[in-house]
Amino acid sequence: MEFKRSPCPVANTLELIGDKWTLLVIRDLLRGKRTYGELLASPERIPTNLLAERLKRLERAGLLTSVAYQERPVRRAYALTPGGEALGDVLQALARWGEAHIPGTQRLA
Amino acid sequence: MEFKRSPCPVANTLELIGDKWTLLVIRDLLRGKRTYGELLASPERIPTNLLAERLKRLERAGLLTSVAYQERPVRRAYALTPGGEALGDVLQALARWGEAHIPGTQRLA
Repeated sequence: MEFKRSPCPVANTLELIGDKWTLLVIRDLLRGKRTYGELLASPERIPTNLLAERLKRLERAGLLTSVAYQERPVRRAYALTPGGEALGDVLQALARWGEAHIPGTQRLA
Repeated sequence: MEFKRSPCPVANTLELIGDKWTLLVIRDLLRGKRTYGELLASPERIPTNLLAERLKRLERAGLLTSVAYQERPVRRAYALTPGGEALGDVLQALARWGEAHIPGTQRLA
């Protein structure tokens, strides 16, 4: 396999998901959000063009799948694949660090 | 406490460290690298201006400290604080995901 920069599993994972918005989209899908509108409505207010781009990128990477649940206009529902769901461990580690080291943070209800 | 976007501990952790280069610098400090030159020499080849900016940002956030170990020219040695070291759990989760889901990755020697 050709790697962009190194064979390091951290570096290659970060090439796929190493930006803030991608990890927040994965957080929301892990919490059961399914539609574009639900993902847009999170308190961090991801810009709509970034959400569309991140969803396409995650689907190409095999971390989520989408199905059309409505035609005209087409609306799609998104779900993590088993590989995407396995990122739950990364999200848990991020949440635990934030709770321990950034005063006042609290997990979303 | 005022939060930029939400009180979510994931979102606020990502505001501090949620970009690829920052997490690779933390990986390297966890592995015992100490000097600017050592950090520049990693296989991912962080650009020198980004390395300088990330080190300053991490120091302002209280995740690392630096001390001058040479004058003229000044050279600084960097070390994670306990808060920075606690990010080891996040790095471990990223490494484990990469090893399980990206064929051919291997941890740096």
